[in-house]
Amino acid sequence: MSLIAKTPEPPYYAVIFTSHRTEGDNGYGDMAKKMLELAAMQPGFLGVESAREELGLTVSYWSNLESIKRWKANLEHKVAQKLGYERWYSTFKVRVAKVEHDYGV
Amino acid sequence: MSLIAKTPEPPYYAVIFTSHRTEGDNGYGDMAKKMLELAAMQPGFLGVESAREELGLTVSYWSNLESIKRWKANLEHKVAQKLGYERWYSTFKVRVAKVEHDYGV
Repeated sequence: MSLIAKTPEPPYYAVIFTSHRTEGDNGYGDMAKKMLELAAMQPGFLGVESAREELGLTVSYWSNLESIKRWKANLEHKVAQKLGYERWYSTFKVRVAKVEHDYGV
Repeated sequence: MSLIAKTPEPPYYAVIFTSHRTEGDNGYGDMAKKMLELAAMQPGFLGVESAREELGLTVSYWSNLESIKRWKANLEHKVAQKLGYERWYSTFKVRVAKVEHDYGV
């Protein structure tokens, strides 16, 4: 089964989240699973792709900027963001980008 | 050491390459290393981030669309793209996106 997100024709938006984790789980795994389920329920959510080695990369896809802003302001998500900042990530970067074209097989 | 790309203030461009690999190496590792070195020498290249588990994610960052087009048309890169298509990837998706804003710690 392909884990590549089935996104519609562009334009749509991508949130590229790149991070280094701290040592230990500290509740991260449970929260990550919960946030993935919660994100998938949000209006405008199109899909997500993720992989982690030394560096972690998660790209989520959204219909428009408004849906990204709403998800960033979601109360449960804000709790997770705070814990991420304090506990789970030693460093991270979030990039919000407009997908202009795509192709593939 | 952080593997997060040190990109400038937006706007700039991201190429999000998502893929599933075929079984076995078949020369992939050597070519991937070579292409990374070659990409880093191209005008407009800003950095790259990569991780692979079941799914592989590589995001490269570029100053503008022209530098992305030139890299896609690079002759050595075109040989690698052909082998990727025929041999190394069972499925892939390329998304070209304009980074509009970013933040992080």
